[in-house]
Amino acid sequence: MSERDALTREAARLDAADPLAGRRELFVLEDPEHPEGAVYLDGNSLGALPRAVPDRIADVIAREWGQLRIRSWTESGWWEAPERIGDRIAPLVGAAPGQIVVGDSTSVNVFKALVGAVRLADADGPRGAARDEILVDAATFPTDGYIAHSAARMTGRTVRAVPPGELADAVSGRTAAVLLNHVDYRTGELHDLPGVTAAAHAAGARLVADLCHSAGALPVGLDEHGVDFAVGCTYKYLNGGPGAPAYLYLRAEHQARFDSPLPGWHSHRDPFGMTPDFAPAADARRGRVGTPDLLSMLALEAALTVWDGVDVAEVRAKSLALSDFFLRCVADLAPAGRVVSLTPEDHARRGSQIALECPQAEAVMAELVKRGVVGDHRRPGVLRFGFTPLYTSFADVERAARTLAGVLRDVEGRP
Amino acid sequence: MSERDALTREAARLDAADPLAGRRELFVLEDPEHPEGAVYLDGNSLGALPRAVPDRIADVIAREWGQLRIRSWTESGWWEAPERIGDRIAPLVGAAPGQIVVGDSTSVNVFKALVGAVRLADADGPRGAARDEILVDAATFPTDGYIAHSAARMTGRTVRAVPPGELADAVSGRTAAVLLNHVDYRTGELHDLPGVTAAAHAAGARLVADLCHSAGALPVGLDEHGVDFAVGCTYKYLNGGPGAPAYLYLRAEHQARFDSPLPGWHSHRDPFGMTPDFAPAADARRGRVGTPDLLSMLALEAALTVWDGVDVAEVRAKSLALSDFFLRCVADLAPAGRVVSLTPEDHARRGSQIALECPQAEAVMAELVKRGVVGDHRRPGVLRFGFTPLYTSFADVERAARTLAGVLRDVEGRP
Repeated sequence: MSERDALTREAARLDAADPLAGRRELFVLEDPEHPEGAVYLDGNSLGALPRAVPDRIADVIAREWGQLRIRSWTESGWWEAPERIGDRIAPLVGAAPGQIVVGDSTSVNVFKALVGAVRLADADGPRGAARDEILVDAATFPTDGYIAHSAARMTGRTVRAVPPGELADAVSGRTAAVLLNHVDYRTGELHDLPGVTAAAHAAGARLVADLCHSAGALPVGLDEHGVDFAVGCTYKYLNGGPGAPAYLYLRAEHQARFDSPLPGWHSHRDPFGMTPDFAPAADARRGRVGTPDLLSMLALEAALTVWDGVDVAEVRAKSLALSDFFLRCVADLAPAGRVVSLTPEDHARRGSQIALECPQAEAVMAELVKRGVVGDHRRPGVLRFGFTPLYTSFADVERAARTLAGVLRDVEGRP
Repeated sequence: MSERDALTREAARLDAADPLAGRRELFVLEDPEHPEGAVYLDGNSLGALPRAVPDRIADVIAREWGQLRIRSWTESGWWEAPERIGDRIAPLVGAAPGQIVVGDSTSVNVFKALVGAVRLADADGPRGAARDEILVDAATFPTDGYIAHSAARMTGRTVRAVPPGELADAVSGRTAAVLLNHVDYRTGELHDLPGVTAAAHAAGARLVADLCHSAGALPVGLDEHGVDFAVGCTYKYLNGGPGAPAYLYLRAEHQARFDSPLPGWHSHRDPFGMTPDFAPAADARRGRVGTPDLLSMLALEAALTVWDGVDVAEVRAKSLALSDFFLRCVADLAPAGRVVSLTPEDHARRGSQIALECPQAEAVMAELVKRGVVGDHRRPGVLRFGFTPLYTSFADVERAARTLAGVLRDVEGRP
């Protein structure tokens, strides 16, 4: 028991020294089925509920919708919500204001961004039009690949899937756009966004980044690295709630030429002119489409208050410390050889989750959930544990690893 | 004052005889600024709040998101919400179950439906591919036209705008798809959906219907009339809340061949297989895209409970009685010549709103709102008054007309 005690003491020491420890109170982490609290390590799938959300949404429903009704489009700031909330996300991904609009799903935004990127090539003339392929990282979350194929089909291009580590070498004068997941959803590997972006630009191609698994967990640096377009969801590390709307980053220099495949009336220069001819807004609003889901969007806005005054560098430092500690606890506590980490040990290549290969992943995760430790599994044999630095404690991590060790002992070794 | 008294008595008589009168209690219609209650005639833009929504959403947030978190995707039925809620909308638009999915905005769904319709033509072989145009009703709500142009551009077609009354004659062997607004958003004119659909089919074209201004106000008969695809919002007569998600109707016989331009992972046959190759779901789920906004979607589901046991024919009868009565009150009470109805008198051509041409529309509507009567205006000179049979009373209508008459007397006659 001495090793276990040592880890427990170490967790307590790390929590006591954690500058973000106070943020945990901003979230609902109670679990009626586990009075000692749940260990929630699935914030990389659905972030926990920020305490600011329920009262805000109750007011949106009762007063803004229930009493002001249609007047809220102007009087409650509903119309400007997509760009206002975009500006709240901007500092978390290293973007100056005026470049992000919130709305639609990630999939729909991938479509806008990829088609927009390809059309920039077309607008460059015959040499751009000769750029006949879209490169997609071969390990992409599936929807990005499906949508990339549709964008390619509808713009007369083809898709080529390339392992993410080889993208920088694969980009060429035939490449119109590169679609890169910043962090691999399965393994938690952090890809080289600056390097791939620079390689794309050197070849005259545009870079579209999917930030679903990085925004809110680590610095992104969209402006700094020259990323052309980016998309991301808001229900993981941004804690916006189930299916909270995604966002689209349109780099300032591209906005005037962004040619959306989904030119809905909310992207019109004068939406209430209601003219039959489309004239796009001059700025990031060009990325909007139709009427956005306000309840989900305003829940996200309330959720984002947990970031007030947070330094993303501090978030990153804690994220790495959490995953380091988790790996150490698993190594110390779990039966040897039953799980193997798929996540790079190198900090420069690690996102904010640890993926453990485990042939019995489904059964192990079901038992973990029963014992109050919530991660998830991805077929066929991956256990995922996500670390959300604003609310995950080192004590959580130690308890998760200890519980995992117990489950592995109790679950049969063969699948 | 005798005419006014007569109208007041008539309103009371009509309300007393109204079989839907009891539904009014299901909505929040209080207005702190007008203790006598607001007259809300803008349900054709944003429906009033159903009383069932606040408690349901409080529970979704506190328990389903706050406590169950990721488990709610399965345990709270989140994953199936788009098709489950689609099946609740189905009877309101004359559709058998299994043909409607909820999600995304109307604009995005117009894109899916139009591209899907054109691709059916392509799948028909060379004769279908020769169908080189999309017909759009020339009075369409603007976003439909903008999106139609994008769909046409991305499928190698052109758009031809045709006055809605001439669509049936304009459709030809060159037509791939026809996009028709069931009710004109501006004038409230009800278009001949069965007639245009039959004409489209006779010419071998597909019909896409936009039901934003008809669903929930009158019978639609999608299955009966053979409509191929339909879209609609849910925040008008369906009272789903601000920006509540739209829906897509995929006629059963087309589902197996529906080829979506937005094949997100939620439309995959096995979403959690997470395979790089796309294989579409066999049914209406093929119309889904990415992760839907659950808070907005579940608010809509709660809102739809107001329809339990409602006969749409009864809704239609009351809608026409309300607009008839409004026109009669305006004719009797308003100063002569100041407003002219743009809405057809013929019941067969009338939706559920009255549009009054009025050069001073903006000033008049602002003053009406101050006096507790809420409609809206559309530039340059149209006052819109929408009648939502589930909560609009005849007394509301009489008070609105009386207030309008007073405002018209007080506002200058020249713009």
